[in-house]
Amino acid sequence: MSSSSSSSSSTSSSTGQFRKEVDEALHAFVARQSPGLLAISEDLRPMITALSALLSGGKRLRPAFCFWGWRAAGGEDGPEIAAAAASLELLQASALVHDDVMDASDTRRGQPSVHRRFEALHAERGWRGPADTFGEGAAILLGDLLLAWSGEMFETSGLSGEQRARGRGVYDVMRTEVMCGQYLDMLESTRAGGTVESALRVVDFKSAKYTIERPLHLGAALAGGPDELTASLSAYGRPLGMAFQLRDDVLGVFGDPSQTGKPAGDDLREGKRTVLVALTLERATPEQADVVERLLGAADLSEAGVADLREIITGTGGLAACEEMIDRFAGEARDALAAAPVAGEARDALAELAVAATARSF
Amino acid sequence: MSSSSSSSSSTSSSTGQFRKEVDEALHAFVARQSPGLLAISEDLRPMITALSALLSGGKRLRPAFCFWGWRAAGGEDGPEIAAAAASLELLQASALVHDDVMDASDTRRGQPSVHRRFEALHAERGWRGPADTFGEGAAILLGDLLLAWSGEMFETSGLSGEQRARGRGVYDVMRTEVMCGQYLDMLESTRAGGTVESALRVVDFKSAKYTIERPLHLGAALAGGPDELTASLSAYGRPLGMAFQLRDDVLGVFGDPSQTGKPAGDDLREGKRTVLVALTLERATPEQADVVERLLGAADLSEAGVADLREIITGTGGLAACEEMIDRFAGEARDALAAAPVAGEARDALAELAVAATARSF
Repeated sequence: MSSSSSSSSSTSSSTGQFRKEVDEALHAFVARQSPGLLAISEDLRPMITALSALLSGGKRLRPAFCFWGWRAAGGEDGPEIAAAAASLELLQASALVHDDVMDASDTRRGQPSVHRRFEALHAERGWRGPADTFGEGAAILLGDLLLAWSGEMFETSGLSGEQRARGRGVYDVMRTEVMCGQYLDMLESTRAGGTVESALRVVDFKSAKYTIERPLHLGAALAGGPDELTASLSAYGRPLGMAFQLRDDVLGVFGDPSQTGKPAGDDLREGKRTVLVALTLERATPEQADVVERLLGAADLSEAGVADLREIITGTGGLAACEEMIDRFAGEARDALAAAPVAGEARDALAELAVAATARSF
Repeated sequence: MSSSSSSSSSTSSSTGQFRKEVDEALHAFVARQSPGLLAISEDLRPMITALSALLSGGKRLRPAFCFWGWRAAGGEDGPEIAAAAASLELLQASALVHDDVMDASDTRRGQPSVHRRFEALHAERGWRGPADTFGEGAAILLGDLLLAWSGEMFETSGLSGEQRARGRGVYDVMRTEVMCGQYLDMLESTRAGGTVESALRVVDFKSAKYTIERPLHLGAALAGGPDELTASLSAYGRPLGMAFQLRDDVLGVFGDPSQTGKPAGDDLREGKRTVLVALTLERATPEQADVVERLLGAADLSEAGVADLREIITGTGGLAACEEMIDRFAGEARDALAAAPVAGEARDALAELAVAATARSF
């Protein structure tokens, strides 16, 4: 494919340079859409403000894995693959907006969540009806728009029809998997008696495949990579994706709010039945299990309650077991990468991303 | 394009035959997706049940307009265009599922709405946490899945890459318009002081373009129709789309629940600021306007309240003005069709659809 990117091949080798290209592609896409929205109505400006704020944050992990899957399969750097990969960030933004409605989360990436933003707009203008209903409705629609735009951005990336045709099947599977995975995640928190095994299955579909394995596959498919490469990328991406989500679960309980962009203990307040929680319950005394069942998911969970839960998670050895699991998955990913038919720059970048995706802080 | 459809050209001329092809295409698409979902987890079965029930209803208006736009531009009947057109029904199903969450509607197409269905599942199984939150979350995710699938169904319709490339721009614009139109619709019911003019603008984007004009354009674009045809289809489709939505508004207040699939007066309970309401308020005495402002959108609106509102809408002449507007728009559409460069079968079908879309009952 032709590349009109101004970046030289040597600077684009860094994941930092690719992040810049993704940011630019997202900015350009939103700038292209905005006049159309404002031509419909000036009243749509808050939609643009909200989505721009949301898109300014994020670690761009999914585009990065897509890009390095592409490079691993021999694709060259260029604005087309940057745009196609960046479309995954719109898909992720859509999922976050809807997830925050479902979890009634107040914040996202250190800012008010989209539904809270529109709720505030409603209150500020003194409009009629319940402000929270308006906020949720606006967020559902904005999430829909972002989902539709992710497909549009992929198809208008500038990649050839043949390239896109090769990637479309992976894109389709990935979307279905993440939506189904999120339903299973919700079900896991809703039904009593989840096990470590059932929690791990949710992680697989909701997160491991969606965040790492499928983006790698997408990149490789777009570049026409062979089946052996796809298998190698799975061997690296799937365990890394598991490790990534388990790390995220640990940060959701113990992370620094200034780094996670979420209040301390937010996952506990939301009652998420993570692998970390399942590992804790497996090891808890009946008394400890009672405390967990009582406090987990309590909307009014106090700081003291968060501290109690943290103590049980640590004291039972649940945290240590989770860290051990993260190490094991991350080790599997490293071993798979060592054996993968991936050379030079892509190998270095994938090793670097493996560290970034499982780091103890963001 | 090649056609492997078993339907002969003469029978497929009827809109009824096309409806059957759309139903078959939807059924085949869902049947293709289901094993993948159940391979992820048997727990996803209620998702399949819910979406199948929803897809069994509906008038298939958007696929029909897409198909006849295609035929008007010289396209031939076949399973590929049926599948591409049917994908609009998945888009519409997605919008309905999310709309029902936003409006807290209990029913859709005479059945429980998707979020109520999952709320009932939660209650039936005795799961923990609030059943309504679970229902809404499941409906948000199912709507997302349907939206993603609409794009997938279009791209895998069997139409050639060249054909799909011609249609994709229309598809993109249509999705953005309907989502923005729905936000403006919500805003209209939220802000005081809406006018007939502002209500009409909402109808344009939320409904007229989305239901009729864009599906016609999509079909014509897929078949490679010339710009003059697109303009003619707009001249017919836009006013017809306006008439269609105004008819829908009238049925939302006065329609027979057994035909609309919604309880009587549901639109009044939801507080929709329709053109019909705006026309009524324009003509109301201060006392009548007070009653409208007090009752419209009251969640506990009684049968007597519905009757009071109906009397005001009729008594002020709001209903008559709305019927007059419907006649005027429908007349414009008929005149435009008479002047359009569309021959034979497509002309007859579009005339027939114009009647169906504005009929006083379903």
